[in-house]
Amino acid sequence: MPLTGPTALDLPAVSPLPEETEAYFKLCEDKLGLVPNVLRAYAFDIEKLTTFTALYNDLMLGNSGLSKLEREMIAVVVSSVNRCWYCQVAHGAAVRELSGDPALGEAMVMNYRAADLDPRTRAMLDFTVKVTEASSTIEEPDRQALRDHGFTDRDIWDIASVAGFFAMSNRMASAVAMAPNPEYHGTAR
Amino acid sequence: MPLTGPTALDLPAVSPLPEETEAYFKLCEDKLGLVPNVLRAYAFDIEKLTTFTALYNDLMLGNSGLSKLEREMIAVVVSSVNRCWYCQVAHGAAVRELSGDPALGEAMVMNYRAADLDPRTRAMLDFTVKVTEASSTIEEPDRQALRDHGFTDRDIWDIASVAGFFAMSNRMASAVAMAPNPEYHGTAR
Amino acid sequence: MPLTGPTALDLPAVSPLPEETEAYFKLCEDKLGLVPNVLRAYAFDIEKLTTFTALYNDLMLGNSGLSKLEREMIAVVVSSVNRCWYCQVAHGAAVRELSGDPALGEAMVMNYRAADLDPRTRAMLDFTVKVTEASSTIEEPDRQALRDHGFTDRDIWDIASVAGFFAMSNRMASAVAMAPNPEYHGTAR
Amino acid sequence: MPLTGPTALDLPAVSPLPEETEAYFKLCEDKLGLVPNVLRAYAFDIEKLTTFTALYNDLMLGNSGLSKLEREMIAVVVSSVNRCWYCQVAHGAAVRELSGDPALGEAMVMNYRAADLDPRTRAMLDFTVKVTEASSTIEEPDRQALRDHGFTDRDIWDIASVAGFFAMSNRMASAVAMAPNPEYHGTAR
Amino acid sequence: MPLTGPTALDLPAVSPLPEETEAYFKLCEDKLGLVPNVLRAYAFDIEKLTTFTALYNDLMLGNSGLSKLEREMIAVVVSSVNRCWYCQVAHGAAVRELSGDPALGEAMVMNYRAADLDPRTRAMLDFTVKVTEASSTIEEPDRQALRDHGFTDRDIWDIASVAGFFAMSNRMASAVAMAPNPEYHGTAR
Amino acid sequence: MPLTGPTALDLPAVSPLPEETEAYFKLCEDKLGLVPNVLRAYAFDIEKLTTFTALYNDLMLGNSGLSKLEREMIAVVVSSVNRCWYCQVAHGAAVRELSGDPALGEAMVMNYRAADLDPRTRAMLDFTVKVTEASSTIEEPDRQALRDHGFTDRDIWDIASVAGFFAMSNRMASAVAMAPNPEYHGTAR
Repeated sequence: MPLTGPTALDLPAVSPLPEETEAYFKLCEDKLGLVPNVLRAYAFDIEKLTTFTALYNDLMLGNSGLSKLEREMIAVVVSSVNRCWYCQVAHGAAVRELSGDPALGEAMVMNYRAADLDPRTRAMLDFTVKVTEASSTIEEPDRQALRDHGFTDRDIWDIASVAGFFAMSNRMASAVAMAPNPEYHGTAR
Repeated sequence: MPLTGPTALDLPAVSPLPEETEAYFKLCEDKLGLVPNVLRAYAFDIEKLTTFTALYNDLMLGNSGLSKLEREMIAVVVSSVNRCWYCQVAHGAAVRELSGDPALGEAMVMNYRAADLDPRTRAMLDFTVKVTEASSTIEEPDRQALRDHGFTDRDIWDIASVAGFFAMSNRMASAVAMAPNPEYHGTAR
Repeated sequence: MPLTGPTALDLPAVSPLPEETEAYFKLCEDKLGLVPNVLRAYAFDIEKLTTFTALYNDLMLGNSGLSKLEREMIAVVVSSVNRCWYCQVAHGAAVRELSGDPALGEAMVMNYRAADLDPRTRAMLDFTVKVTEASSTIEEPDRQALRDHGFTDRDIWDIASVAGFFAMSNRMASAVAMAPNPEYHGTAR
Repeated sequence: MPLTGPTALDLPAVSPLPEETEAYFKLCEDKLGLVPNVLRAYAFDIEKLTTFTALYNDLMLGNSGLSKLEREMIAVVVSSVNRCWYCQVAHGAAVRELSGDPALGEAMVMNYRAADLDPRTRAMLDFTVKVTEASSTIEEPDRQALRDHGFTDRDIWDIASVAGFFAMSNRMASAVAMAPNPEYHGTAR
Repeated sequence: MPLTGPTALDLPAVSPLPEETEAYFKLCEDKLGLVPNVLRAYAFDIEKLTTFTALYNDLMLGNSGLSKLEREMIAVVVSSVNRCWYCQVAHGAAVRELSGDPALGEAMVMNYRAADLDPRTRAMLDFTVKVTEASSTIEEPDRQALRDHGFTDRDIWDIASVAGFFAMSNRMASAVAMAPNPEYHGTAR
Repeated sequence: MPLTGPTALDLPAVSPLPEETEAYFKLCEDKLGLVPNVLRAYAFDIEKLTTFTALYNDLMLGNSGLSKLEREMIAVVVSSVNRCWYCQVAHGAAVRELSGDPALGEAMVMNYRAADLDPRTRAMLDFTVKVTEASSTIEEPDRQALRDHGFTDRDIWDIASVAGFFAMSNRMASAVAMAPNPEYHGTAR
């Protein structure tokens, strides 16, 4: 919080930003009302920013059997287990927005077991938590439990991918003390 | 191990592979003597293969203040904490090869504290383990400890990035039961 | 959430409520705009409601070297460790209200280490977490650390008392699936 | 143990004690042969002593579907998980006394799974341990398991209440290094 | 406890016992007033009984810089961490007997940190707990801390050996549900 | 690794070695091509060397319903949980040698769940891990599960004994920084 840049590391953004990056940041501001600090943090190296963004966009916004809300719920539950400040704030806001249900966003942060979820969604989040806390113990019955709730093998890949992505992002954000944009706190309350 | 494809999911590779992917796999075979199963696993969706590969190559092979061996040591230590079969096998082989020291590869898998490491490398791996096990407790003194061993802020970013990447990859590999190529076991013993 | 009463147990409130209880609930509604569900939950046995309320009021509202905000911060940090849905919701709202700082309330829920706290407050919350997670390892140096930040022995008693109280309340609320009043979610955002 | 007062804090009892407190302590000595140190510890503030005692007496001595022995078994099992010196000593003595079975008191302290318990009592203590160690994961099947052993919803409330109370008392006692009266050690051996 | 033999396994003692074993059991009865059930449990195979007894006697009764009481304190602290019913009962009795201090025996079982120990004994037990809970993290500073309290390298070997022995015995006793002789409960109270 | 003797302790072997020990070490060299460092470590006290060797030989080489490979698999799985450098190296080599399957040796070290094991062997190793990690929670159903896979009560004793032995040896080796003979690393790859 007492940071002047988006992280605790002294890694200023490339200056001036390449035109394409500049345009992308402008697009964020237009659509989201802000440039997420995670993007500013990566902007010290445009190659890194690009690969990160490509992966993020494919996973969270690309084609999938999982809805965007489901993917954001996975994001917040993983970030809650890992107690990642940045990701709970930013993706908690996304759950509130996509669901129109502020209490659901809070439950994903505080204890997803307290939410009133249908069994399919609950199974998805239980698998997510196991991937997050004890991935080395996942075996065929864990995957089969998802299939029994109607998830395809591609859906299973996507659940694991989103959970894995936030295992990475949470650690990155915490390791460098990434500060969430303050606008998120009041979003969709 | 009783798998016929590279994972437990029924997600066959795109067939035929795009020319560019075909060429990349051919390059792998020429340089490594095999196509890593992780690439075959992602090949059901070329967009996903591409974003994964771009991120991997930037982190593990791109420009960095960390040597390739240091990055592979981080990879194995993370994978050991997470007990990821695929990544310990594949990256344990890489540590043996890059270091020419089979015992070092074993130590990264079994207990990095038993290896005879210089204090700088030890600090790098201690930070790695904290990122892996308790990222929410990392604070400024953890980063400062790395600086005190001569790491730059960019190095800290890279250590966190590699540790984070394997937090993701380990979970992905374990969640889908990714099988390592058997050739790795005997490499550089 | 799909509960019709304040908990998952079939323990309806005494009916009609004794006049004094009725008056107390009326007072809550006037002052808070709601009767906290925890009070409704205890109202199946007026003796239990009375002893609970007396203890709560002494600890959280009574005379103390700790400010009300400090006591609520302890409450939320304990409830975050225990992932108590009811208490994080209700007391998170209290922190936002008493501090006028919504982000502070979120940080107490998500990861108190991410908040920008003065060293005295941080020491108070570190002690709180140790009481919550590993009370059997508390020894004289833990108490002395608080004294070194200016806390008196009476303050130490109060920190431990509030932390202990929520160790109890969190377990009670979780064990009976106590539902927080929905009004809390939007309070002081 | 090297303490001169009942705790490590410098919080002497009100002096002289109010007449009512004096009488209560006299009653303890007559009935128990001692004034429990926990009462002396709270006597620096008569309001706190009163609220604590009221809650304790309601829970441990008041009307309940649980026998006093069952409540004391819960107390010791919780205190064993939390390794609280004061409560294991004092309530271990109570289990020995109420049951007339010294080995039962030891088993509650050392490992309740080693005791030869009927399935209903075992279910009660398994629930107790879950409340103590992982309250955020308690859900309807946990409560239903108790109902299946014949416990009423009011009994479930009481089990949770006693378990919760010792979650509080253990932390309070450990945080201030409360010393048990030495007389307990030899009681009912 | 509802066992008819000394364990839950159907492994009756060799019958008749060899003369030498008979004599050894007779000696136990004369000196201890009982034949420890652990010996009866191993008596299904005289070779196993002999190797176990030889190791036990060397470690616990043989020549060492550690007193017999110190060795028994280590035994109980390890058994407390592992919550081994048999060993806490049998060796808790030994601590009470050798020390003449029943409260000390209880503290070793319940929480050794609550005992009033001299710094050297405390260091010995802290090392013991680290060997028990996290042996893979022991490094030179842990050994040096013992040397700084006056322990020789041979003493360090002996502390580790006794701690290691009970890591084994605790698991053996718990795995086969070994029942302690009831006489221990009342010993030296 | 920077050690000149077999451990970090200054406990040189008896010199000269007794004739019988000398002969035993010669036998090791003839049969194994080396004298295991664990034997050199114990050789500072011939009584300790003898009792350790007698127990080891009875458990690992003596008569049992478990094959030598099964016993070595148990050894490595326990040592993997405990991350013991010496035992993973030495007994990992034994699994590779006895099985002729280098990947099996690696799987025991890295994550036994990834190996393609028959259900009986898997049950044996699951019991082993429970003995290693949570022995106080073992109860009759755990033993019955082994019987259901065809293990006799004597087999159960032997599984527990081998698991218990390495609980001891791992701690001993880690506590004194025992260095494995370097020859093990390349064995049977």
